[in-house]
Order: sequence, then structure tokens, then C-alpha cells
Amino acid sequence: MTAPRRPISLDVTRALAGDGRPLPVGLADLAGRQEALSAAADALRARQDRGEVGFLGLDWAGWQVDRAEAVAARLAEHSDTLLVLGIGGSALGARALDSALGPGSGHTDRSSGRRIVVLDSVDPTRVASTLADLDPRRTAIVTISKSGGTVETAALFRVFLPWLKAGVGSRWSQRLAVITDRERGALRPLAREYGLAALPIPDDVGGRFSVLTSVGMLPAAYLGLDVAALKAGAEAMRESVCQPDLESNPAWRFAALHDAWWGHANISVLVSYCDRLAAAGEWFQQLWGESLGKIRPDGVSVGWTPVRAQGPVDQHSQLQLWQEGPRDKLITIVRVADHGTSVEIPALSGPEDGVGSYLAGRSLEALVDAERRGTTAALVDAGRPVAELCVDRVDAYSIGALVVFFEQATALTGVLAGVDPFDQPGVEAGKRFAYGLMGRAGFEADGERGRTLLGEG
Amino acid sequence: MTAPRRPISLDVTRALAGDGRPLPVGLADLAGRQEALSAAADALRARQDRGEVGFLGLDWAGWQVDRAEAVAARLAEHSDTLLVLGIGGSALGARALDSALGPGSGHTDRSSGRRIVVLDSVDPTRVASTLADLDPRRTAIVTISKSGGTVETAALFRVFLPWLKAGVGSRWSQRLAVITDRERGALRPLAREYGLAALPIPDDVGGRFSVLTSVGMLPAAYLGLDVAALKAGAEAMRESVCQPDLESNPAWRFAALHDAWWGHANISVLVSYCDRLAAAGEWFQQLWGESLGKIRPDGVSVGWTPVRAQGPVDQHSQLQLWQEGPRDKLITIVRVADHGTSVEIPALSGPEDGVGSYLAGRSLEALVDAERRGTTAALVDAGRPVAELCVDRVDAYSIGALVVFFEQATALTGVLAGVDPFDQPGVEAGKRFAYGLMGRAGFEADGERGRTLLGEG
Repeated sequence: MTAPRRPISLDVTRALAGDGRPLPVGLADLAGRQEALSAAADALRARQDRGEVGFLGLDWAGWQVDRAEAVAARLAEHSDTLLVLGIGGSALGARALDSALGPGSGHTDRSSGRRIVVLDSVDPTRVASTLADLDPRRTAIVTISKSGGTVETAALFRVFLPWLKAGVGSRWSQRLAVITDRERGALRPLAREYGLAALPIPDDVGGRFSVLTSVGMLPAAYLGLDVAALKAGAEAMRESVCQPDLESNPAWRFAALHDAWWGHANISVLVSYCDRLAAAGEWFQQLWGESLGKIRPDGVSVGWTPVRAQGPVDQHSQLQLWQEGPRDKLITIVRVADHGTSVEIPALSGPEDGVGSYLAGRSLEALVDAERRGTTAALVDAGRPVAELCVDRVDAYSIGALVVFFEQATALTGVLAGVDPFDQPGVEAGKRFAYGLMGRAGFEADGERGRTLLGEG
Repeated sequence: MTAPRRPISLDVTRALAGDGRPLPVGLADLAGRQEALSAAADALRARQDRGEVGFLGLDWAGWQVDRAEAVAARLAEHSDTLLVLGIGGSALGARALDSALGPGSGHTDRSSGRRIVVLDSVDPTRVASTLADLDPRRTAIVTISKSGGTVETAALFRVFLPWLKAGVGSRWSQRLAVITDRERGALRPLAREYGLAALPIPDDVGGRFSVLTSVGMLPAAYLGLDVAALKAGAEAMRESVCQPDLESNPAWRFAALHDAWWGHANISVLVSYCDRLAAAGEWFQQLWGESLGKIRPDGVSVGWTPVRAQGPVDQHSQLQLWQEGPRDKLITIVRVADHGTSVEIPALSGPEDGVGSYLAGRSLEALVDAERRGTTAALVDAGRPVAELCVDRVDAYSIGALVVFFEQATALTGVLAGVDPFDQPGVEAGKRFAYGLMGRAGFEADGERGRTLLGEG
């Protein structure tokens, strides 16, 4: 009998005082949060029971996530490229999965031969080049918008629909799927009229928590990723993060660590020593920033600024700042125990350059490992707090678990901070101003006020 | 007669108190820094005269930058891909130029048909996929390292040299160039032995200030970019930033603004509403972070944390935090006045989705513009400081100017903050630990101390 696989672990030792580390936060500060965490977890479960918070207990079958594979297969019949039109939570999850597990990862040996192109930009140059680069005859499109009213996605849909029709004629409806609200999604009438494949988004799952719904699962299935293993990893982590215990629950520990450091630091740096996890860092940046950056009920503004970075490359960009700059950062280093690929560094034939002979016969993964440890040691030496998040290896199972880990940790950190991790009231104001400035009916007053604020009045 | 083109302008009005904006920093705080800026500029010039700081007055001919075009032409004779092996300042500038002006920008109408691949990673999966994806028979390589001893670049060089030799046999030396220190660069003996093309890096220009030396100019020339216009834009901005005057000098204003806000905020956000400038944001992030994150002579740690973002996409990721989160950020929005590409948004034929009909007949660039203004208005409304950096259009002339603007602004901000913007003492510690942990001779004590700090006993 082998122990069950635990793909994610978190070591917070070097982010706490002790053993020559004179830090303002210690183990007792974490332990003292056990009760608050227990209450926060209860609060999340109560909201789950009221149908407000769905990510903790996704019902794969009930929400047609299982249908994602069938829809993906249908789209793949006549295409090798899936163009994903979506923005924010409708884009970052798919990109994270592709970058970790799909052709975007560089791991092509198990590739389906299909790729996804995530277009989350309305930049005219980028859109024009996407129109020119893709062949509509080999492309399927999925447009993702919960309300259907996301302005960027609505604009891109209007640009790409005629392009698809011009390319494939009447068969366009076979190559188009929509993911939107079950009832109110503005794309529903169109889907009904033309018989488009349509998948729902659960009412109680917000965009940034939606990667394991059809929003992420349809692109994953199109790429031929192991959707069952993604789910299995997510489910296993869900069980593990239900342990109401700081010791055995890494999400509780991550939340407690950040809650204890808040007030001492305001920047949370996530440095990944694996390129396949770079896009997951962008996904985390949205999850963390948009969930926690809030005005508390008592009127105080709170929220960690997330900074994502890659090792070793950002040692040559940001390490100087982390090490000698202000003590305003809590740093989490992401380590992948097994890279799954080995590249040997050969000796230099011909004149030695005199500085690299010790590299001969070593591997790149050993170099990455030494640099990660060297950076950790330098940061500890400089008195900076460093947590280590270890992923055993990058596969669908661990990525499913990683998603649940970060979602749970973010939600708990928000509840501990006294904010609602699931809303984004600030974003609406900017949207209203933009609508008004675009001349959308009903937003005239917003446009007027926007012009006044801009001094254009 | 037309007025000389001024490609860069900076509006700091909305980052200062006044006109209903209750901010802690006002125009008087900027004006009060005029003398300090004058002294800082004198200090930079004195260091330039002593041969310590070269970026302000690059001698294109003296430093063989003009030879970059000849070397690029030679490399291009038998290749259509230039693999750039370098990291940090040896990679970010080339990528910024490609992304703004080359095939990386999506603007392909004036393309040379050649591309660059910047490999600044030793991640084994990424390196293995690069080895598999590139064809050595169509690839030239430039390896960039001032000392020649940068461990990642030394490792990549050892991995790719046998690959190139295996692919093209004895002609490998025609397809390889090195950019390194004129005298002491560790790659010099190799270059001499095999007659490799070799370009120098000026002694007094550090990596992060080197984009307009051969480090950036060789890749630019390979891509067929307008190197003369890059130089002309840089020279024009150099003259303009020599204006010792807050009013007419945008770099002085950027530096004064940040110096005045320091203590009120510790995060500098740069949001670009143009995808072509995304990689320039990464370049800025290194320049700003590594130049300013320092321990002052009085022992105090200072330095802004740079955060780069893209509009409109990051409105769906970070805007909530910027708007309602802590008042710890100074935000600079980068606006491009003329995108140079227009994409119309057609009306939806078939059932309207009810939320986007106002978009019909508008353009994507109008949408980007409305979103930028809407975001600015929302941030101003929330009492957050917003500067606006305007680039008239993205071309070689404006990018040359933008580079000099940011370099000058960063150097001045550092001098005002009381740190040396040109060193990076912290990075060395991490390197020594990594060498020791890799078992490099001469670094045994560092390895031992690193293991102790890591608690590995």
C-alpha cells in the first residue's frame, strides 16, 4: 500500500521568526489564527449552502462540465485551432492550463495536434494580426461571457463572426460554441436560433473561480488534456483542504501566513521556478488581486498587491529589490520537485571560457534547483520572509489540486481580512464611465461625469 | 516649417492635488524639487565625465554599434531566425524592440521575414522544446554576456553550440556572434580562435541600460528595424531631457513625481493601453526595480516595486485592487495616440444579444480609448493618483525616445532617493550561494553558509 499522493505542500518555516531569523511574525501568530480560520471556513460553507459560493463543491455533472468533452470533440472535427474569446476569468484559466499541460508548455509528446489561441485583447494591431494569422477553415471559436455583456468579448465576437462565416460559409454554426449564463446570458438567443453548442456557467461561481467549470474544461478537453485527472486532483485537494487544521491544511497555512503578515507587508510575490507555471501566476494574480483589494465595512482599504515572477530569469530583474529594498514583501517561491525533462550541459570543446567549466556534465534542472536554493538563502540571509510552495510534478492531477489550493487560500484570506472575496464593486464604476464615453444609451450621466473627472468638461 | 516631433509627453496633473482631488502631493512638491533635480543631473554628468555612466551619451561609432548592422547581415545570410542567448538586460531590450516594432508586434507588413527567439530561461522543458522547434540549418545565434560568466547564458551556450555544430557542420562559426566585454569578456578567446563576429559592450553601460548598444541593436538590425530612426529618436530625447527644467523635461517630472510620492506609496504601476508596449513594460520593470531597490548609505532600505499591466485586459484583473485597495500605488497610464491600425466592429447579423448594439460601426481603437479614459476617470474618482504618459505613435523613433526617457527618469529618481542607480550589490549574494550549492570551486564557504541558512544542516 502506498500513501495517497499529495501533490502540493507548503513550508512556511522561513517566513516566520526563529532559528536566527528576526522576523516580526512567528509560529504563535499562525497558531493564534486557528479559531478565526475555523470560523472563516464555516462562513464559506454557509455561503455555499445558501447557493452563493460554488467553487468549493462543483457539481461536474449538474453543470454540464462533462458535456465539455463532447462539445470539444464536435468543434475539433473540422479544426485544429480553438480561438477562445474571453477576458479576465474567462481567459486566464484556459491559458494557465495550456501553459502547464498543453502545447503551450513545450511538452508536445502527448499533444493532440490541436492548439488554443486565447484572445483577451481588443488592441487593434493584435486583433488584426490574429485575423490575418488564423485560417478560418481550420479554426473553431468559443466565446465566453457569463452575462454576455462583457464589452471586449462582445466586440471580438462581432469582429470574428463575419470572418468565420466568410471562411466556412453555412457551416459556421458547427464551429462556434458559447459559454454563458444558463438563463440570462445575452448569447442564449443566438445559440438557440442557430443551434450553437452552449455550455452554462454555474450561477454561484464567479469568473475568477471558474477555471474548473466548462470555462476552463472546454479548452482543456479541446487540447486533449486529461480532464478526469484535473477533476481528480481538484477533488482530492478539496478533501484535504477540508481538514480544519493548520498543520495538515496548506490553504489554511497560506491564508494564516498572509493574514499575520498584513500590516508588516503589502506586496505578495509569487516566484515560480518552472516556466510551465508562468501563466498560472497570471491567473493567481487576478484571483488574489481582485478578491482581496477591497474597502472593508469599516471604510478601510485593504488588499495585497500580487507580483508574479519567474525564476531564475527574474533574479536578473527583481531580486535586487526583494533583497535590499523595503521590507514590504512576503515572498512565496514555487518549486517543482520533478521537472519531467532533463537536459545535460555538455563541456565546451575548444578554448574554455574560464568561467563555466564547473557546469560540464551537470543538468539544467540541477542549475535551476541550485539557483532557487541560492535565492532562498540570500533572501533569508537578508532577513526577508520566504514561503516555499512545492508541486511534486506538473501534470493534470497536480494542476487540479493547485487551482483548488489557491482558490481556497484566497477565499479564506479574504474572509480573515473582513472583505467579500467574491465581489468586485470597483470594476463596475470604470465600466459605466467607459460606456458613457462610448455613447451607450442609458449611460449619458456617467459619460458626463467621466468627462468632468478627466477635466475635459 | 513644422515643429520638431515630440513623441513622448507626460501629464502629471491627475497625480497631484487640486480641482477636487484631495491628494497628499501637490504641484508645489514638484516645484520644490527643481534644485535637487538640477543637482542630480549634475551628479550624473560628473559620473559620465568620469567614465562611470555611459548611457547618456552613447558614442555609436566608437562602440561599434554601427557594426551591428554588418554583423546582422552576415548572420542573416544563412538564417531566418536569430536565437538570442542572454538574460536580464541582455534579453529584455531585444524583446521590447521586437514586440514594439518587429514581427512580435503583429505588424508584419514591413517585416524582413526574419524573427528573433529570445531564450532567457534555463528551464529544461523550455530549452528542450526550443532545441526541438528550431532548425539549426536556418538559425543563427548571438550570445550576450558582458563578463561572459553569467551562469544561465554560459549553460545555454554549452547546450546550443553542439546543436549548431551538429546541424551545420564546419560552417557553425559563420552563424555565431558574441557580444561581450571588449577586453575581459570570457567569450573573447573563443571568438578569436574561431574568428567569430564579436561586438563589445561599453565599459560604462550596465546591462539594464544597454538596449541602445549592440545588445539591442544587433537583434534590431537582424529584424530589419529602422536602426537609424531608433538612434535619431534617442538622440532627440537626449537633447530634450537635457533641458534643466521641470516644465519641459518629462523625465525630470516623472522623477520628481515619484520622489514626492515616496513615503505615501511604495508601488509604481505602469499600465499600457497598447499591446505592442507589453514587453517594454517588462524591460521597465527590470530597469526600475533593480536600479532603485537599494540600501541607502544611512542603512534604510528604499525602492518602488514596479508592477506592469496591460489595458484593457488587466481592468479585469487588477483594477479592483487599484481602485479600492490600499492607497499604496502611483499609477502611470501609457496611452498611444495613434494605433496605426483600425479595426471596425460590425453589427451583429441575426438575433441581437441586446448588450452590444451600441458597438456597431465603432472601432476597436475607439473602444480601447474609451476604456482607458473610463479607467482614468474611475481612479481619479476614487482619489487615486494617475499620471499619463503619451506616445504619439509606436515606431522606431518614438521607441528610441521612450528608452532614453525611462533610463533618464530612473537614474534621476535613484539619485534623488540617495542610492546608486547603476549597481546591484544584492544580486551577487544569491549568485555566490548558487555557485557554492552547484559545487563550483572557490565557493565552498558560500555553499556551506547557504545550506545553513536553508536549514539543511
